[in-house]
This record gives sequence, C-alpha cells and structure tokens, in this order.
Amino acid sequence: MLTHPELGKSIYDLATPCLVVDEDVLRENIARMQARVSGAGKELRPHAKTHRCLSIARMQVEAGSRGVCVATVGEAEVCVEGGIDDVLVTSPVVPPGKIDRLLACAKKTPRLAAVVDSAANASALSRAAAAAGVRLSVLIDIDPGLGRTGVPFDRAAALAEEVDRMKGLSLRGVQCYAGHLQHVHSYEERRRACRETAERLEEVLDAFRRAGLCAEVCSGGGTGSHWIDCGFPAFTEIQAGSYVVMDAEYLAVEWKEGTRFAPSLTLLTTVVSANRGGWVTVDAGLKSVYHHGAPPRVLRPCGLEAEYEWFGDEHGKLLLRGRKRPAPGDVVELVVSHCDPTINLFDEIFVARDGRVVDVWRVEMRGRSR
Amino acid sequence: MLTHPELGKSIYDLATPCLVVDEDVLRENIARMQARVSGAGKELRPHAKTHRCLSIARMQVEAGSRGVCVATVGEAEVCVEGGIDDVLVTSPVVPPGKIDRLLACAKKTPRLAAVVDSAANASALSRAAAAAGVRLSVLIDIDPGLGRTGVPFDRAAALAEEVDRMKGLSLRGVQCYAGHLQHVHSYEERRRACRETAERLEEVLDAFRRAGLCAEVCSGGGTGSHWIDCGFPAFTEIQAGSYVVMDAEYLAVEWKEGTRFAPSLTLLTTVVSANRGGWVTVDAGLKSVYHHGAPPRVLRPCGLEAEYEWFGDEHGKLLLRGRKRPAPGDVVELVVSHCDPTINLFDEIFVARDGRVVDVWRVEMRGRSR
Repeated sequence: MLTHPELGKSIYDLATPCLVVDEDVLRENIARMQARVSGAGKELRPHAKTHRCLSIARMQVEAGSRGVCVATVGEAEVCVEGGIDDVLVTSPVVPPGKIDRLLACAKKTPRLAAVVDSAANASALSRAAAAAGVRLSVLIDIDPGLGRTGVPFDRAAALAEEVDRMKGLSLRGVQCYAGHLQHVHSYEERRRACRETAERLEEVLDAFRRAGLCAEVCSGGGTGSHWIDCGFPAFTEIQAGSYVVMDAEYLAVEWKEGTRFAPSLTLLTTVVSANRGGWVTVDAGLKSVYHHGAPPRVLRPCGLEAEYEWFGDEHGKLLLRGRKRPAPGDVVELVVSHCDPTINLFDEIFVARDGRVVDVWRVEMRGRSR
Repeated sequence: MLTHPELGKSIYDLATPCLVVDEDVLRENIARMQARVSGAGKELRPHAKTHRCLSIARMQVEAGSRGVCVATVGEAEVCVEGGIDDVLVTSPVVPPGKIDRLLACAKKTPRLAAVVDSAANASALSRAAAAAGVRLSVLIDIDPGLGRTGVPFDRAAALAEEVDRMKGLSLRGVQCYAGHLQHVHSYEERRRACRETAERLEEVLDAFRRAGLCAEVCSGGGTGSHWIDCGFPAFTEIQAGSYVVMDAEYLAVEWKEGTRFAPSLTLLTTVVSANRGGWVTVDAGLKSVYHHGAPPRVLRPCGLEAEYEWFGDEHGKLLLRGRKRPAPGDVVELVVSHCDPTINLFDEIFVARDGRVVDVWRVEMRGRSR
C-alpha cells in the first residue's frame, strides 16, 4: 500500500470517522500475549474474527502462533487464500453449501479443522468429506454453560465415539469456549467460574483417554480468561482475540496486576456541530462505533473530559464534563466500545507510528459473515 | 448482474446470513409514499442513508422524487457519480478536506445542496466555493429540539441573513428534521409534537419572507411523521427514508390507519445448533443484525413462534414460544431491528420475486461514512 494518498499524514488530518492502529502498541500486545501463553507451555491461536484483517493475522503467526481461529467459512476462505494454513473454524458449519466451501478450504490445507456439536452434523460433514476425498479434522464443541453451541460436558465423550467411527472425519480433541465468562467484572469471580469449567473439562478429557479417543487438542480461553486458563492443565491452546486491539468493554473489567493490554485501536471523529451548552456533536454514530458494550472512552485531545453517547446513525454526542470545549473541526480520539463488530464496519485500518500514517491495512474479512 | 450465480435460486437456498428485498413490496412502498406526498402537493426527497444503494435511489427518482438526501459526503460522491443530480447533504460538512470533496460534487451537479448551522462553517464553505468557482446552494439547518445539529428556531433568520451576504453561497431555505419525534409511539403524541415544530417553523419562514430571504425549500419529515408533516404548509419536501424497506422499530410504533408500509426487507439466517430445550442458535448476530431498536421479528417459517435475541457477534438466540421447533439447517426469516445500520453491514442485497432471486443489488454506499 506504499502509494496510498494518506501515507505520511498526521492521523489527525485523516477524513473521519476512521480507525487507527498504533503499530507499536499492537506489536507489543501480540508479543506479550505470545510470550505469556508460550511461557505457560500452551499454544496461542488468536481469533481473527476480532480484526478480520490478514495483516494482523500474519503478524500473529509470525510472532509464534500456530494459526488462527475464525468464526465463519467466509473468514476461513480469506485466511486460507491469504496463506494462513492452520485455521480452526469455531462455529458448527451446517448448510450443505457451506460444508462444500469448508471442504474446499480443507483441500487446500490439511491443517484446517472444524467443530461439531451434533451427530447429524458430524455425519453430514463426514459423508461430504469422504465424497470430496478429504479427511476433515474436527473437535467436539463443548458448551460450558453459555448455551450458544456445543454439547453438554456429559455428552461430549459419547459424541466423540460416534465421530471417531466416521470415515471422513479425524477426531482431534475438544473446543470449550466460555464466552459468558470473559467479561465477568470481578477477577476472582471470573477465576472461580473458569476453574469450574476447567475441572469439568478435565473429567471429559479423562473420559476421552479412557475410551482411547484422541484429545490432542483442547482449545478455549479468551482475552478475559487467558491468564487464568493458562494455569489449568486442560487447555492446550488459547483462542484470545480482542487483546490485540482492546476495547472499552475489556478495559472496564478487572485485570490481575500487569495482565491488562493497552488499547492499540482508536476511532477518530470530528466535531461537526456545537450549538448546545452541555454537549457537542461528532461525526461517528451507530454506523462507525458499534452500539454494544461499555460506552466508548474519550482519549484525546488531552484534558477533554467528556462522555460519548450514540446520537443516531451518523452522529455521536460528547457530553462535556469539564471546562474544555472542543470546537467544530476538532478531532476527538476514542477507544471503541466493542472491537469486533466495530472493525467490521470499516474497509481499512490506518496504521500509525508516532501519530503519522505508516501503512493502510485492508479489513479483508469485513462482511465475510456468510 | 445477470450472471450472478445466485440468480434463479430460491431465497431459502442462499448462503446465510443475507439480506433479501421483495421487489414487489419495495415498489409498492415507493409508489405509495410518492403518491401520498405528491398528492399533498409536496416534493419527496427520500433519504438514501437508509439503503445506501443506488438501485433503490434510482427507482425512487424514477417514481417521481426530485432527488435524494444523503448524510455524508462519501454518500454524495456515490450518488453524483451514479447519475443522481439532485442531492441534499443533510449534515453540516466541516473539515476542509470534506468541503473540497463536497465542492467537487457541486461542480458536477449544480443541484447539490448542503446545510449550515454556524456562521463560521458557512463562511468556510463560502470561501472555498468562491475559490473553486462554484456557488453552493445551502439550507439553514434548524434544530427542532433534538440538539444534534442545527440552530435554534430564533437564530435561524439571523444566520440566514449572514449566509445571504456570502458570495460563495446561495441561500435556498431551511431544513428542520425532527429525528427525535419519528419513533414517538403514540400517533397522537407524535402529531402534537410535530404540530408544535411546524408552528415554530412557520414563524421562521415568516421572518425569512419579511427579511426578503429565500425560503423556497423547507425540507424535513421522516417515515414516522411524513403523513402528519404533509398536512402542514411549512414543509415543501419530505425526507423519509426507512419507509422503503421498513424495520421492527418502525413496525412497533402506532400508525394512522392505512398509512403503515409493509416490510420489504428481511434477513435470512440458518439454525446452526439446537442442543437446548428452550432455544436454538442461528448464524446471525451483532455483525449481521445491528443491535439497535426493537428486537427483530420472526416472520418465517410459518407457525414458528419465537423471539430473537442477540447471542454474540456471529449468533442469535431464537427463544421458542410455541410447539414448533426448527432443526439445524432450517432457514428463518426476520424483519431486522433498525434498517439503516443493518443494511450498512452488507455488500449486496438479494432481490426476490415470489421467493426467487431475480437480481442482486450492490450496496454501493456501504461504509461511506467518511
């Protein structure tokens, strides 16, 4: 992207609303998480659904991650096409058309894996894989209580036995992602709940071993629980995603001292109207800062005390809490509310060093929800 | 798009999550709104920020609309480039880079207009327009109490006098969009509040006339108030947007008998997990149904009584309220919560007639928030 017209600009001169990543902070987050997980003797498999950006996925792999997670077949296609050969699709793939696309990816890279949470779906995958001449690696998806996908702990081994007999599938282990625990505010409560999950998981893995079922992989954990999960023998790999950019939602929970990551991603927005005493209006609304989770945090300009509220599809309200009052044209920098769906609103991310644009990354997986 | 691989398919065979428009219902909505507004002796200027889709904008213009509204310069560029020559940008354009892009559009079409809500911004626009050799049409943006953009009623004429003296600008009238009234649940309350706005607006227009200021255009109204606003002499044009596709938010408010529009836009999603008694999990979450406003409504399959709840970035929870229980692989059709930001999540809309795909429209303005 060396010819991009925005290269070299101050980030505060970019057309807003736009997303900016501070490259040094991003690299530091990548390195810290990798060191922490490797240091605990686990593998790191960052979730690419957070950033949907190949440039970041490649940096994570170069830093030592074995591969990535993705949530959709559309994301898997982009990753495989982009040269990332170890990809775990973390949601069940059900419709026949999607199964065909998944298997086309598996033909390109034998290190692709899927998850299953029903015998019927496993059977459909197996038949299609056999017909395509592929042996598809699968993990049994375990529901740790969230109820979104997965089988209950006590049905995992039985499903694994069925899967193990299916000719088109190669059982590799389990996935157990506790999405409902990642944002539990209290660190101690989160730790207790994660411990319960890990203990149940150990029982499942014991049952696998007793039955001679492969339990080589146990994938789980996220940004909010990675440090806790690294302490349990059950997990072999950690699926954290948000740590790489961070957001207001994760900044708001309690962290064990020294384990919090710094926000590398910010949103720039411009004041466009200032006719009221108590607030000013900025040009980022629902379509630019996804309305979900903790409210965005105002970072800059320095000294501006303000709270962001959504103010329609294209606008935000900055409620002024101090003396400083930005004027129309002033640029305000925010930490976004929830990183995953916010990044998915943008085609590109501006990469900055010391406040200057040094690169522009495409969000290649944006919109790849199908 | 005659070669698109999805043409001719049943919409229930499309990869999900995806957006589908029923072309007949959409055309009916366009025709009804046009007839209603024309019948009241007003112009219709549909807001293209709702659909961000040139195909729909062109259908609206062909049906008799004088042009469109847009909220951002990025949207204006796509419309002008796409041959729509009468475009009103409904939010103040402030940063110098955006003013330059706005003027580049105005050079291509003299029927482009902008809004101003401060003398400083008007002055910057005027200087830039004069330097570019353009006379830019502007409306004074009036704040009807929402406080998002605009000047108070009692300051509109004074700002108009200043604007009228600016060489680069051509004063055309006012804009007064009551965004805070569109979803007032009670029709009577909405009517009363709109009447108050219209009365204040009449006073402003009288002041304009007394001062010899141009008040040829008075632009306002939306889907929730269009029928009410058509009854007031103040408005010359109606800015409604959502009526063309509709959403759960607008379906939830009270309508005067016979004035409600039918939902032409739906979202298709597939059941991907069904291991719990009370609910099943579908493949549309935050990234596919924007989390805002009234919850999505389940339309099909017929007889399915269920409520949709968001269940993470990629999933939704269908809480089952009746006997019917969909199985993994079943496709469910929803009316989305809030149409504008949801359409902005997709690159294309599938167009259906009698349940078959007859066309695929690009959402050309998706992501054009800058």
